[in-house]
Amino acid sequence: MAQVAIVMGSKSDWPTMQKAALMLKELGVSYEAKVVSAHRTPNLLVEFAESAADHGVQVIIAGAGGAAHLPGMIAAHTYLPVFGCPVKSSQLNGLDSLLSIVQMPKGVAVGTLAIGEAGAANAGLLAAQVIALQEPKVRDAIIAFRQKQSDTVMSNQNLELEE
Amino acid sequence: MAQVAIVMGSKSDWPTMQKAALMLKELGVSYEAKVVSAHRTPNLLVEFAESAADHGVQVIIAGAGGAAHLPGMIAAHTYLPVFGCPVKSSQLNGLDSLLSIVQMPKGVAVGTLAIGEAGAANAGLLAAQVIALQEPKVRDAIIAFRQKQSDTVMSNQNLELEE
Amino acid sequence: MAQVAIVMGSKSDWPTMQKAALMLKELGVSYEAKVVSAHRTPNLLVEFAESAADHGVQVIIAGAGGAAHLPGMIAAHTYLPVFGCPVKSSQLNGLDSLLSIVQMPKGVAVGTLAIGEAGAANAGLLAAQVIALQEPKVRDAIIAFRQKQSDTVMSNQNLELEE
Amino acid sequence: MAQVAIVMGSKSDWPTMQKAALMLKELGVSYEAKVVSAHRTPNLLVEFAESAADHGVQVIIAGAGGAAHLPGMIAAHTYLPVFGCPVKSSQLNGLDSLLSIVQMPKGVAVGTLAIGEAGAANAGLLAAQVIALQEPKVRDAIIAFRQKQSDTVMSNQNLELEE
Amino acid sequence: MAQVAIVMGSKSDWPTMQKAALMLKELGVSYEAKVVSAHRTPNLLVEFAESAADHGVQVIIAGAGGAAHLPGMIAAHTYLPVFGCPVKSSQLNGLDSLLSIVQMPKGVAVGTLAIGEAGAANAGLLAAQVIALQEPKVRDAIIAFRQKQSDTVMSNQNLELEE
Amino acid sequence: MAQVAIVMGSKSDWPTMQKAALMLKELGVSYEAKVVSAHRTPNLLVEFAESAADHGVQVIIAGAGGAAHLPGMIAAHTYLPVFGCPVKSSQLNGLDSLLSIVQMPKGVAVGTLAIGEAGAANAGLLAAQVIALQEPKVRDAIIAFRQKQSDTVMSNQNLELEE
Amino acid sequence: MAQVAIVMGSKSDWPTMQKAALMLKELGVSYEAKVVSAHRTPNLLVEFAESAADHGVQVIIAGAGGAAHLPGMIAAHTYLPVFGCPVKSSQLNGLDSLLSIVQMPKGVAVGTLAIGEAGAANAGLLAAQVIALQEPKVRDAIIAFRQKQSDTVMSNQNLELEE
Amino acid sequence: MAQVAIVMGSKSDWPTMQKAALMLKELGVSYEAKVVSAHRTPNLLVEFAESAADHGVQVIIAGAGGAAHLPGMIAAHTYLPVFGCPVKSSQLNGLDSLLSIVQMPKGVAVGTLAIGEAGAANAGLLAAQVIALQEPKVRDAIIAFRQKQSDTVMSNQNLELEE
Repeated sequence: MAQVAIVMGSKSDWPTMQKAALMLKELGVSYEAKVVSAHRTPNLLVEFAESAADHGVQVIIAGAGGAAHLPGMIAAHTYLPVFGCPVKSSQLNGLDSLLSIVQMPKGVAVGTLAIGEAGAANAGLLAAQVIALQEPKVRDAIIAFRQKQSDTVMSNQNLELEE
Repeated sequence: MAQVAIVMGSKSDWPTMQKAALMLKELGVSYEAKVVSAHRTPNLLVEFAESAADHGVQVIIAGAGGAAHLPGMIAAHTYLPVFGCPVKSSQLNGLDSLLSIVQMPKGVAVGTLAIGEAGAANAGLLAAQVIALQEPKVRDAIIAFRQKQSDTVMSNQNLELEE
Repeated sequence: MAQVAIVMGSKSDWPTMQKAALMLKELGVSYEAKVVSAHRTPNLLVEFAESAADHGVQVIIAGAGGAAHLPGMIAAHTYLPVFGCPVKSSQLNGLDSLLSIVQMPKGVAVGTLAIGEAGAANAGLLAAQVIALQEPKVRDAIIAFRQKQSDTVMSNQNLELEE
Repeated sequence: MAQVAIVMGSKSDWPTMQKAALMLKELGVSYEAKVVSAHRTPNLLVEFAESAADHGVQVIIAGAGGAAHLPGMIAAHTYLPVFGCPVKSSQLNGLDSLLSIVQMPKGVAVGTLAIGEAGAANAGLLAAQVIALQEPKVRDAIIAFRQKQSDTVMSNQNLELEE
Repeated sequence: MAQVAIVMGSKSDWPTMQKAALMLKELGVSYEAKVVSAHRTPNLLVEFAESAADHGVQVIIAGAGGAAHLPGMIAAHTYLPVFGCPVKSSQLNGLDSLLSIVQMPKGVAVGTLAIGEAGAANAGLLAAQVIALQEPKVRDAIIAFRQKQSDTVMSNQNLELEE
Repeated sequence: MAQVAIVMGSKSDWPTMQKAALMLKELGVSYEAKVVSAHRTPNLLVEFAESAADHGVQVIIAGAGGAAHLPGMIAAHTYLPVFGCPVKSSQLNGLDSLLSIVQMPKGVAVGTLAIGEAGAANAGLLAAQVIALQEPKVRDAIIAFRQKQSDTVMSNQNLELEE
Repeated sequence: MAQVAIVMGSKSDWPTMQKAALMLKELGVSYEAKVVSAHRTPNLLVEFAESAADHGVQVIIAGAGGAAHLPGMIAAHTYLPVFGCPVKSSQLNGLDSLLSIVQMPKGVAVGTLAIGEAGAANAGLLAAQVIALQEPKVRDAIIAFRQKQSDTVMSNQNLELEE
Repeated sequence: MAQVAIVMGSKSDWPTMQKAALMLKELGVSYEAKVVSAHRTPNLLVEFAESAADHGVQVIIAGAGGAAHLPGMIAAHTYLPVFGCPVKSSQLNGLDSLLSIVQMPKGVAVGTLAIGEAGAANAGLLAAQVIALQEPKVRDAIIAFRQKQSDTVMSNQNLELEE
């Protein structure tokens, strides 16, 4: 009964998508991760998306590359909020992935994050921000993470010329 | 029992997609056209795509705009050849539609045509070229269409300076 | 004490951003809308973003065009989930707005929607999907909206050749 | 008397284009592959395209990079269906190849696949899908390929955090 | 026996391409203009390109839009210098035309001008610059045209605030 | 009391941004460099930008990548001239950084330099050109730098064929 | 003896570039505006750029479209700070103008503003910010302009649903 | 007294631009190559371009990267035909170089070749094609080069599956 489900179109997306998992782990949010291909396992997609809410999932994170249909198709089969992660493609640097995910028509929404690992980590953070509306413990973890992040920048100001 | 099914994500795609219908009509290929939205009627999509072959359809033409998932999702649910038409989007001129349709991963194929009306007409032509492999009458119609097209260029060479 | 705050960089963004308001209204979610310019009223931005949670806001929708800094800067000042809407710019069709909003660095997240009105409407929908995790009434409204949307596609299949 | 002809603009396209050959081989479709340069051997192109149907070829797959004129020019000289593969160019990542192939004018069609190896493999698959309309054995091979592909995704779900 | 041949893929390119004709006329270079479609009249293309030199043509200007194969294919069939004009396409603003013309592989060259009317005019100018290497009268006309152009800028400096 | 402040969104921008520092050093302009993240230390950004003029800073150089909000947000909090440096991003080659910095709305200006190290060096040069309006010594250093640069090109003309 | 010189490549750029003039006028900075074409009056360009400093000019604003060489070439002939304005081109929306101006090589700098009127206005503002380093009256005018701009946003918050 | 002058903006462009030199050498056309920087040696540029015709140069090939102003500025100072080579830039893959060279305004023309080495080689070929109008020996060399190129494709058809 994980709070957040992380799905991706191919196992090769996992090095990118695990950044979402790591962020959720750091913020104390439970998750499960699996491969669900929109094109190669379309029936699994329907089954997964339609039953996610019943299994207690509250937010779905979906990552895919190229003609990335997974996030939008999952959003079409659930009323849960879906966040999409464009995985960097080998040809067009992820611009194709980004446009395929973000340019959804009116009526089915995908909240899209940046291309690649930073976006995947932020999908985890954004999912946690949604969970935090109901769980003060997660909210506190986010505030602490943010503070730590800010402190890291502040305490690491030493810039020396290399040349 | 049409030979070609033309589907599109929204009724607003019909002014573009009817160019496919007109081409098929000109070449003597039967067709049916309907709206099937990948995002708004995902179950209809599955039902349509999985039963198309049983209804005698031989080629599917699918048109959509923006994050255009329809052609690829239909291809995921059938072994029939699928041709995709990027409909010009109002924001990014159809570049998003094109990339969302053409950049399919290995294992599920969509033969993609040009953005807009020319591409829709060519989807009808390409579908007819496939049907023509089995129907000499359609092949002859294509050859005649091509000849007429060539003649039109040849007989219309009068170029006068406007300024 | 609105559940969702809609902010935008300029009053000229309102024709686009009101699509978010209309969606929230349709789904029974309370909202407030205001102009907060990242560049022209940067102090108002800080004050708004830092106090939003205390005023009971649960989700922030931020729209902007061009070098669109508003959504990301608001996200930097709150732990609430922030959804960003790229408003179509007059020069680059909103590609600049999209990239300026979506390409956030790790640690501060903005869930980005499509360029223009469809994206604004979907920001309202996605915000409602987040609220629905705690309010069954909103969840039911979303399910009904989705069903109505699907029915509209299904009952509107009449496609006639114009030529 | 191969069923599918695979042509490419340069021998350096073969590492990409052989993915089409491998797919056809896997699906039991006969093919022949050769280099036909639109720019360096334009007369060979005409001769090849005009005689392909007479030699029993049913589908032509054409791959090229940069200002990729081969697929469109072959399509101009035959009534057989032509599928185009944009080979990744060293300068613009294949965006030039893609646009040069897909943006054909009304009246001469090229069904275009994704940039690079995935697109080449899918050109083979799409050609087989066309052949399968007449050969039940190929249809069965496609269905089996698809099932195996789906099974591979399903049985390979183990995702472990690396960090 | 014109010195410069202007060809274009479609009669609809003439409003753009006639700027080349007007420039040649202004500079005293003889020209002939005709429609030669790479895709719709491929045999005419070969015939035209292969015989142009024999007819006394010294430079060929070729304009086309979309997947613009005309300039490159003409260059493949002649040793005369070929200048290419990307005609603005309705979908991608001529970026597809530009890339399809300019990104030629090593061994067959097209000197490409700007998208649209300015480029067409400059194709005429560049052709005249080539002719001028052998005809002092044309060289003098170019020098005079340039001087007039410079004078126009110089004598037209009055800039008044409109607001 | 440095004349120029160089700020950047992340310590990882320093290898790029130090080119600004090196240029200022070469031209005899004093500088200070620090990390100020728009997203991770937004309050530090406000504090820094609002007090820079009081500390004697005359020009601010700000570099950032991706959704690069730092230069624009600094410009929103100061009346000093701000020059922005798009740092090359790993996904979109810095096009996102460039558009996020340069496409500022009317009323808050950022003078933007090229993507990457050349742009950072030029930000230092441009800042020096501003300082030089008041300091003849800096003006002379710029003139000398330019002369040296020109001499280097002139004296280094030996071009030998490698093949 | 104007403090700021505004130059542009063509008289057709004036509707855009006069926004720079209006901003300078509002902030109390003297200016002169003229057409100097890099391509059509290259000698005028050299003469203008090399003598500007001697005539008391302190900042140069240069606007151009397409292959916009004016700002960079002026910068090559002066040690004064140069700000560049990409004028929106009719084909590529000003992306060509932007890249032609901003991507300068190391050693010659152009501080580039946004495409179109907003960028032109900001070039005037940025020039005034440079002048303000020496003229407290201009600095005060900028602060007042900014305050007024902020007040306008604040006092204009009435957002009413149109539908 | 070379027939063709090859100039480039930086010595680092030589590995690309020498492909033009090699092609000219192969075709028996004399050339000279030198570095002329539009930005760092603007006066050398003027001097070179204005005197080239007097020195017997018939065609100028100019290569540059980024904000590539060299070809256009040379064209502004001569009536000789100028061919431009976009050198691949490290940030935007040469798209900036291409647009900066090709998008010239009406009245000053640059015939632009492909990005990178293929384009440089083709600039040499195109220059030879111009020279060939007056020199039958060069024309014969081009015809022979073309034939050899075609033969190479024809005799090198062995394509073996690697997998």
